[in-house]
Amino acid sequence: MKNPFEAMKQLKKLQEKMAKIEEELEQTLVEGTAGGGVVKIVMTAKEEVKEVKIDPEVVNKDEVDILEDLIAAALRDALTKAKEKSAEKMGSLTDGLPLPPGLF
Amino acid sequence: MKNPFEAMKQLKKLQEKMAKIEEELEQTLVEGTAGGGVVKIVMTAKEEVKEVKIDPEVVNKDEVDILEDLIAAALRDALTKAKEKSAEKMGSLTDGLPLPPGLF
Repeated sequence: MKNPFEAMKQLKKLQEKMAKIEEELEQTLVEGTAGGGVVKIVMTAKEEVKEVKIDPEVVNKDEVDILEDLIAAALRDALTKAKEKSAEKMGSLTDGLPLPPGLF
Repeated sequence: MKNPFEAMKQLKKLQEKMAKIEEELEQTLVEGTAGGGVVKIVMTAKEEVKEVKIDPEVVNKDEVDILEDLIAAALRDALTKAKEKSAEKMGSLTDGLPLPPGLF
């Protein structure tokens, strides 16, 4: 990269690409589940929570701890999937841009 | 920044600072609540789910939709707090580093 204008052009391209990816992530839904689907949590890949679905079968005053664990597990699953999707898309961000290794 | 060695030194400093902040975020807990605390979700500022707590009072087979909404609300609250904490700490990352405006 010989001159600063070239660097600024690359930075602008990077920011435009980033904005496009952010938009795609907002439209991408992931679903975290637990207990074979008795608890489902749907969110966007930007981690905006869309829906929580619980099978009435596991809604039981005497087994609240089991319900709590199922929800925690479904939540971990949803967040993991959202982060994987985000990392996958962000990974494509620096394709083809002459950046020093390790910057991102 | 006159020479590339200076740039590499700054980059190394940035990466060390980032690693320290990541560690702090892993140790920082946030709590999302809904319904005045009948549902609580505890996670780290890195969004690692630690605990889901539900008051048995709202665990009712006939009102699963209310429980679903409470959990979704507590989850949004927890994720918002985790992201705020992360943005706050990351914001301090570039303090004192001679970086072009708008890079982060």
